[in-house]
Amino acid sequence: MERTPIAVLGASGYSGVEATRILAQHPRAELRVVSSDRWQGDTVEKRAGIRGVAGRLRYAPPERAAELARECAAALLCTPVDASLQFAPALLAAGLKVVDLSGAFRLADPAAFRAAYGLEHPHAGLLREAVYGLPETGGRAAIAKARLIANPGCYPTAAALALAPLLRAGLLAPDSVIVDAASGTTGAGRKATEDMSFSEVMDDFRAYRVLRHQHTPEIAQTFARAAGRDVPLTFTPHLLPLRRGILATCYARLAAGKTSAEVAAAFSHNYADEPFVELAASADEVSLKSVVGTNRCQIGFAAGGAEPGRIVVIGSIDNLVKGAAGQAVQNLNLALGWPETSGLDTLRGFNP
Amino acid sequence: MERTPIAVLGASGYSGVEATRILAQHPRAELRVVSSDRWQGDTVEKRAGIRGVAGRLRYAPPERAAELARECAAALLCTPVDASLQFAPALLAAGLKVVDLSGAFRLADPAAFRAAYGLEHPHAGLLREAVYGLPETGGRAAIAKARLIANPGCYPTAAALALAPLLRAGLLAPDSVIVDAASGTTGAGRKATEDMSFSEVMDDFRAYRVLRHQHTPEIAQTFARAAGRDVPLTFTPHLLPLRRGILATCYARLAAGKTSAEVAAAFSHNYADEPFVELAASADEVSLKSVVGTNRCQIGFAAGGAEPGRIVVIGSIDNLVKGAAGQAVQNLNLALGWPETSGLDTLRGFNP
Amino acid sequence: MERTPIAVLGASGYSGVEATRILAQHPRAELRVVSSDRWQGDTVEKRAGIRGVAGRLRYAPPERAAELARECAAALLCTPVDASLQFAPALLAAGLKVVDLSGAFRLADPAAFRAAYGLEHPHAGLLREAVYGLPETGGRAAIAKARLIANPGCYPTAAALALAPLLRAGLLAPDSVIVDAASGTTGAGRKATEDMSFSEVMDDFRAYRVLRHQHTPEIAQTFARAAGRDVPLTFTPHLLPLRRGILATCYARLAAGKTSAEVAAAFSHNYADEPFVELAASADEVSLKSVVGTNRCQIGFAAGGAEPGRIVVIGSIDNLVKGAAGQAVQNLNLALGWPETSGLDTLRGFNP
Amino acid sequence: MERTPIAVLGASGYSGVEATRILAQHPRAELRVVSSDRWQGDTVEKRAGIRGVAGRLRYAPPERAAELARECAAALLCTPVDASLQFAPALLAAGLKVVDLSGAFRLADPAAFRAAYGLEHPHAGLLREAVYGLPETGGRAAIAKARLIANPGCYPTAAALALAPLLRAGLLAPDSVIVDAASGTTGAGRKATEDMSFSEVMDDFRAYRVLRHQHTPEIAQTFARAAGRDVPLTFTPHLLPLRRGILATCYARLAAGKTSAEVAAAFSHNYADEPFVELAASADEVSLKSVVGTNRCQIGFAAGGAEPGRIVVIGSIDNLVKGAAGQAVQNLNLALGWPETSGLDTLRGFNP
Repeated sequence: MERTPIAVLGASGYSGVEATRILAQHPRAELRVVSSDRWQGDTVEKRAGIRGVAGRLRYAPPERAAELARECAAALLCTPVDASLQFAPALLAAGLKVVDLSGAFRLADPAAFRAAYGLEHPHAGLLREAVYGLPETGGRAAIAKARLIANPGCYPTAAALALAPLLRAGLLAPDSVIVDAASGTTGAGRKATEDMSFSEVMDDFRAYRVLRHQHTPEIAQTFARAAGRDVPLTFTPHLLPLRRGILATCYARLAAGKTSAEVAAAFSHNYADEPFVELAASADEVSLKSVVGTNRCQIGFAAGGAEPGRIVVIGSIDNLVKGAAGQAVQNLNLALGWPETSGLDTLRGFNP
Repeated sequence: MERTPIAVLGASGYSGVEATRILAQHPRAELRVVSSDRWQGDTVEKRAGIRGVAGRLRYAPPERAAELARECAAALLCTPVDASLQFAPALLAAGLKVVDLSGAFRLADPAAFRAAYGLEHPHAGLLREAVYGLPETGGRAAIAKARLIANPGCYPTAAALALAPLLRAGLLAPDSVIVDAASGTTGAGRKATEDMSFSEVMDDFRAYRVLRHQHTPEIAQTFARAAGRDVPLTFTPHLLPLRRGILATCYARLAAGKTSAEVAAAFSHNYADEPFVELAASADEVSLKSVVGTNRCQIGFAAGGAEPGRIVVIGSIDNLVKGAAGQAVQNLNLALGWPETSGLDTLRGFNP
Repeated sequence: MERTPIAVLGASGYSGVEATRILAQHPRAELRVVSSDRWQGDTVEKRAGIRGVAGRLRYAPPERAAELARECAAALLCTPVDASLQFAPALLAAGLKVVDLSGAFRLADPAAFRAAYGLEHPHAGLLREAVYGLPETGGRAAIAKARLIANPGCYPTAAALALAPLLRAGLLAPDSVIVDAASGTTGAGRKATEDMSFSEVMDDFRAYRVLRHQHTPEIAQTFARAAGRDVPLTFTPHLLPLRRGILATCYARLAAGKTSAEVAAAFSHNYADEPFVELAASADEVSLKSVVGTNRCQIGFAAGGAEPGRIVVIGSIDNLVKGAAGQAVQNLNLALGWPETSGLDTLRGFNP
Repeated sequence: MERTPIAVLGASGYSGVEATRILAQHPRAELRVVSSDRWQGDTVEKRAGIRGVAGRLRYAPPERAAELARECAAALLCTPVDASLQFAPALLAAGLKVVDLSGAFRLADPAAFRAAYGLEHPHAGLLREAVYGLPETGGRAAIAKARLIANPGCYPTAAALALAPLLRAGLLAPDSVIVDAASGTTGAGRKATEDMSFSEVMDDFRAYRVLRHQHTPEIAQTFARAAGRDVPLTFTPHLLPLRRGILATCYARLAAGKTSAEVAAAFSHNYADEPFVELAASADEVSLKSVVGTNRCQIGFAAGGAEPGRIVVIGSIDNLVKGAAGQAVQNLNLALGWPETSGLDTLRGFNP
């Protein structure tokens, strides 16, 4: 089968390396262009440890890569917001499908974008056109037709997969939703800071950006779309002394008259046929090690504690796979008309 | 100064070793008796790495140790519930002060004890007499006069220090309290199980006993005492891939008309003079590494996010020190009329 | 293409799970039989997190699995020595190719087997027939024709790949070889012991079985075959606080008149075309993270320090892949006439 | 008892913080001056988590601190080589005893200093005068009389304690000594580099600066002094994914006619009365967790493997305590005529 040429811009970040690895073994894709300032001229084999055809590809500097990418059918932008804002319009104009992993096109409301990123969105039309790429919460048809897909953030992916089915079914009381989540260090990207040094992070655990994390409006937007109304939200991220994985422990109350059986039914209804969601038998069974290395999300819940109506839903993902590069390839698959699981169903877990 | 003889029963568990280390350097105490089945006959130097007089002490088997302990002024029971229930009455009868680190005397309501431990409490009179030993939440005078002190559990200590001042001041809305906490592995004690093996725990993070952890009624009891009413409570513990430390991220809503300034004032009022509580400038600054190795609790809070009235209070402790052996020595100090910080203010942190 | 049925006995150990994962995605193999006492009746999806056809397979108890395996073309024995000794003869008699991951058939000298395992080898004929399966050190043709392949141990694989080319070329002085190695905890298998508990292993590093590790005679045998003479050997294994990976730091002196250029040439000559060996530019570049998750071995060396003639060769592997299940599949590929890299060239690294 | 004022310059590095903690609880010392550029103006309580009198001290900028230190009896220089070279002469001229933790005064041979640090030593007289401060290997009397003490490096401390007694007793064959060592990340100091970031170091293990580490000449100097002759040396450091601790696995051959009983005797003879050396029953018992947090070194050895005359000596220390700040205080104690264990015998281990 003829393979379709794909570009990965920003290929030296952790998400970019992961996207490179996945596409290098994708049965339909040909990794044609990879960009990186820091690694320009080096081979993919040297930097990402990939052998074979893809391994012989060399990193191009960003501007040059954006030029070369015009021959591709699609591009994954694993770049920061400003670079995504710079490169997306030209790639779209050249006819490529674009999956952007930054926050540049995630927040549909220009005011929300301005508040989060401190600048007026320079491409309001593209912002309107962009489709939020979380297939399991709806919108598969729109993703398949989209030119520009905003790939969700890692925390928002975990939170939305855990709660969207319940919000959509009207099972949760207003004003009751809390997302308490913890992430591995790769969520912060490559960092040369003392704060993220091994000596400071090892054996520690702490919350950060409490009540002011930049992913909060994105989570709120997903929740609002699912619920059909605003969903006030409290979100607390924590930093774990491990490299990969997000566990989101979500708290809510059932709406009046709703039951935990309806919660179970809503999860089954939404996720029974989803290839990348695994419903766990209980909240206790959800773990990072079940999902790290894969594009899967594991979800479990508990109800019936001391507080009537309280439910606890726990979801886990690999922040670099389902929370970034894997989900981007899933969206790419949809956008190019390929089987949704292409290149993703062979990802092995790392347990142990 | 003459030193006072003290016994540590159950000295080979992680809490028992920590109690042994602290008492070996306590300026008023003489570690006179240590008990352990598994280490009987060995020296404290060999097993706990302590030099000097205390290091030459040898572990006695439990029954023999209980006998020898009759010459002591006080005993720390670092034993499981059943052993504490067995040894406490005789030691009390022999005139010792007893600080029990198990759950045997923590739940004042015999029905709550029965529900949690599956047996009728065999010493109802002692249960009534026992004083709950969390000095910072009140009751210092009672602790000082107590014969039998129930040393709080590790999660309950972290949760109570974080929220009791706010509950006491009536600042929190009913039905709004969630305690989401994560602990290092020593909280589970010495374990020879596959579940707690390095290969299974490393690089993982998960919740356990969701909505059914045995510490839940103890936390609820402390909250109820502070609030003067029942406080419905949701508690979710998680297992961290590190050895020591508990971080409790607590969620609540302010009661009608209350403000975050009143929260700050309540913390200052309660804790300004507490030697073992450190008020952090923000929730983000609370970490395990600030407290591990010490008898301190660090507390910070955040308010003013997207949800009006929402507050997030984060507390951290070392589960083996302020969550077990350190707090037991603090209670011992009070019970024997010693300065409350004796032997505890010299504990160094491990950062890094 | 028709797939060939393969059995994995002992599929619930860490090596067995890894073999199951690799074979589930092997383009030529059909995973037909998996055995496990502890998991019998459960699906491979539930226990090993594998979806698709292989995921629906159920673990059979060992005796039953050995029966079912008779319909397979080959079996991987991920079993302990005694079980391998029990099952191998019947499977061979039924016409299967057998790759045994235990130590049952590795030591060609019956006296060495007796010394290492404390029993007379019960199948001396099979022991004579068994072929040691380390393709990169020679013997590919023999492996391809073998009925019974003894898959090398993890430490011996790392040590042999690091030093065999130099011993074969006569570059090393007699009596100068030291192998100092460190392994992740999965090398010890699933363990429910206090010694291997997270609280004991985390943040620690130590040597174990110094000068008496059971892999020593296997390493010595490989070295002797390469050198054509006995090679006195000192081997010290250490336990690392991580799950996967072995780093072997090997010390030797150059034989009289030999140079480090000849060392570099010997490595190039032996390994330039090896798909699973990566020659690093220096000893400093060899790391666990470059190989963990893959079937690769990374090798680098240094010479020219303060001591004339001293060389340090460092090799790294994933103990569960190139050190166990991956190498077993590599041997299976050779034995069944498949491309040597089938099912192995798509294994992704975990960096980070 | 009147306390003696002491200064710590460079108090914000990991060794400086550790020195600050130890001196804050030292029964004879009064921590009077602490210097730090980055923390200037902050209290010791805020930055080092120390309460009480020492906690209220504020960090002064280096030049100002050097001025203030003139009122102290002694100074610990936890500064880099260039700062130590700058500050030591003036402090000595002002009459202070100086313990320097950098490499500025460790290499007695000016040529060795030039080779290691790339500059001519600016204070040749002081270099001649400086006393190497490793009390357990001899020289206690000289340390007690010294004005300027060069505090040993972390790797050299571990290596020298493991092998010096055997070299002094003439038990080791020439040209047979290898030091293979592994260190926690704090040995590299506070680092804001990608290489030392958590995501890169976690779950990895590798050697670095193989055959060219800057500690090699210092180790060689100590060995030569013990042996009374040059001792050719191979040294390979590795980086462990943990924060504190060095394990040195040392290889040598016995000299002709020497026995392992003489090795045991040499260790007993040298170390039986040493307060900070613990002789382990075997090489397997030496671990990081036995010593981390303390000023102790643990030493064990093995002999009698497959190679006649081979011995393996393993030593462990906490790189920040016996490998830096603890040893500096030990030297300070000697220099000021205090009991050698003052302030050090109360350091608790962190196990677990």
